[in-house]
Amino acid sequence: MKLATLNDQTLDGVLVVVSRDLSRAVRAAGIAPSLLAALQDWTSVEGALRALYDDLNSKRTPPHAFAFDPGRCAAPLPRSPQWCDGSSFLNHGRLMAQAFGTPPIPDFDTIPVMYQGASDDFLGPQADVQLPDERDGIDFEGEFGVILDSVPMGTNADAATRRIRLITLINDWSLRALGPREMKTGFGFLQAKPSTSFAPVVVTPDELGGAWRNGRVHLQLRVEFNGQEFGRANGGEMNFDFGQLIAHAARTRRLKPGTIIGSGTVSNIDRAAGSSCIAERRVIEIIDHGAATTPFMRFGDRVRMTAPGPDGDLGPFGAIDQRVVALGAAV
Amino acid sequence: MKLATLNDQTLDGVLVVVSRDLSRAVRAAGIAPSLLAALQDWTSVEGALRALYDDLNSKRTPPHAFAFDPGRCAAPLPRSPQWCDGSSFLNHGRLMAQAFGTPPIPDFDTIPVMYQGASDDFLGPQADVQLPDERDGIDFEGEFGVILDSVPMGTNADAATRRIRLITLINDWSLRALGPREMKTGFGFLQAKPSTSFAPVVVTPDELGGAWRNGRVHLQLRVEFNGQEFGRANGGEMNFDFGQLIAHAARTRRLKPGTIIGSGTVSNIDRAAGSSCIAERRVIEIIDHGAATTPFMRFGDRVRMTAPGPDGDLGPFGAIDQRVVALGAAV
Repeated sequence: MKLATLNDQTLDGVLVVVSRDLSRAVRAAGIAPSLLAALQDWTSVEGALRALYDDLNSKRTPPHAFAFDPGRCAAPLPRSPQWCDGSSFLNHGRLMAQAFGTPPIPDFDTIPVMYQGASDDFLGPQADVQLPDERDGIDFEGEFGVILDSVPMGTNADAATRRIRLITLINDWSLRALGPREMKTGFGFLQAKPSTSFAPVVVTPDELGGAWRNGRVHLQLRVEFNGQEFGRANGGEMNFDFGQLIAHAARTRRLKPGTIIGSGTVSNIDRAAGSSCIAERRVIEIIDHGAATTPFMRFGDRVRMTAPGPDGDLGPFGAIDQRVVALGAAV
Repeated sequence: MKLATLNDQTLDGVLVVVSRDLSRAVRAAGIAPSLLAALQDWTSVEGALRALYDDLNSKRTPPHAFAFDPGRCAAPLPRSPQWCDGSSFLNHGRLMAQAFGTPPIPDFDTIPVMYQGASDDFLGPQADVQLPDERDGIDFEGEFGVILDSVPMGTNADAATRRIRLITLINDWSLRALGPREMKTGFGFLQAKPSTSFAPVVVTPDELGGAWRNGRVHLQLRVEFNGQEFGRANGGEMNFDFGQLIAHAARTRRLKPGTIIGSGTVSNIDRAAGSSCIAERRVIEIIDHGAATTPFMRFGDRVRMTAPGPDGDLGPFGAIDQRVVALGAAV
């Protein structure tokens, strides 16, 4: 099943069911007003949403179906209870430690690293990304993520995996001039992490078929930077699976329905996969050639992310396709 | 004006106006269903809320007023858009760095340190605090905080101060066995910060009279641990004021109405003030006597926090008075 949220200027937006081929959608208002409301009552509403999805994909098209326009979409959850972002591709973490000159992370191979992000102001897939200063080192980070039902405190990784309701594609915007200092305070990222962006469509795990296995998304995350291919790292190379990341987040707290857990920047050991963020490419340039040559983003630059699959080039999630602009310059 | 939230099992609870002496309350349902809703529409609703407050404090007691029972209260905002907690008492920060053996924080005297906390599951003033393991080093942290109207990205400290709508008293629960490792990852606190607790009553700045000046709360934060006085540090000793903390948080993001900014653990250079958390007392014990003798909390232990003022011993916020219990043992 595929779901999305139309931007109607409310805090939670309007839930729509999207056809498998991303061509059509229908409001699910009679079932749940928003995706957050649906997740809060998932066992009651899932059947009705799936029936609507089946109709949308069949010749029994619901009478109120309309053409699906990702440009009208908010983030699937414009606000969510929590956004906890792991760093589960150790290849990326090791390269970043080299890039930032930060000390080795304790227990890096055995305990997931995770930061708490702001979760109240997520950006839709085509929203302009307003930022205050190009000198902050504007960068993208391509990630996969999972959206949860409630998870009790102390849930183990296996049980946690069973609480995954939806899968999502994320651009975790980062400001590289601010990150290393914030890491050195020990208090973690705050200014270095502005609002995070999401692909328009979220999918139930069954929708990925064999690409969802072992608690990982085995799809390439395709990044295009100003129209040029930048990376196509595969999400299957996560060193911790999503169940382990959820269990880590739930160790001393309960997680409410709609909590989002991120994989961290998708990264592969094979250099041919490219990178899912500029900072990682820059450190590879330094290692290979002695100097970084790819600059961070300037206002006007665009980045596009998809996860092409059996569904085609747009993949199951559709595209995040955004432009970075100076604060106040958004259209 | 004093406000509180009754726990009705909904996500945002029910807004009530509380009398100045904390004896009576009246539902504000005709004005705003919840405190979050009131903050989202503050300029429209403030006048009506203040009129109700005036009636409640006069002989024109509203007909539906009832005895105010903090035991029925949820956190004033059971969920809020963001919870960004500073560490603005440098005396505390310096002692903690010594206690944790963490490296010096860069720019510690000139740039506020702040972490992003979870903001979806705040605890009311008398709720049992369920935690999984006494060996995690269970500790309290007494803080003051401010609750904001919307704050645009890039707002400076002076303008930010004018966006403060309410002031609050906070117990920022902390797990000391988990904190130092999370600081060393650079990703900040996650497992080390379970759900945060709040005093029942929030107040508009005018309610504090002269105790609210220079963007600081000049009241003692009285901590009693298992019935014994533990600390009475004054909030006026903040090295950064709340306006500076808000401006720090808003540097690369907008803040939505209801965002909460914390002062960090209230701490005074004068040792006679005691401490607002066990970890700080323990490091002072080590400095003064060579060994820490105060243990962290055990299940069954209680901690009570108030900020006594001209209003009396309960102070403007009422009391946070909670017991720590094993996960699953809450009543």
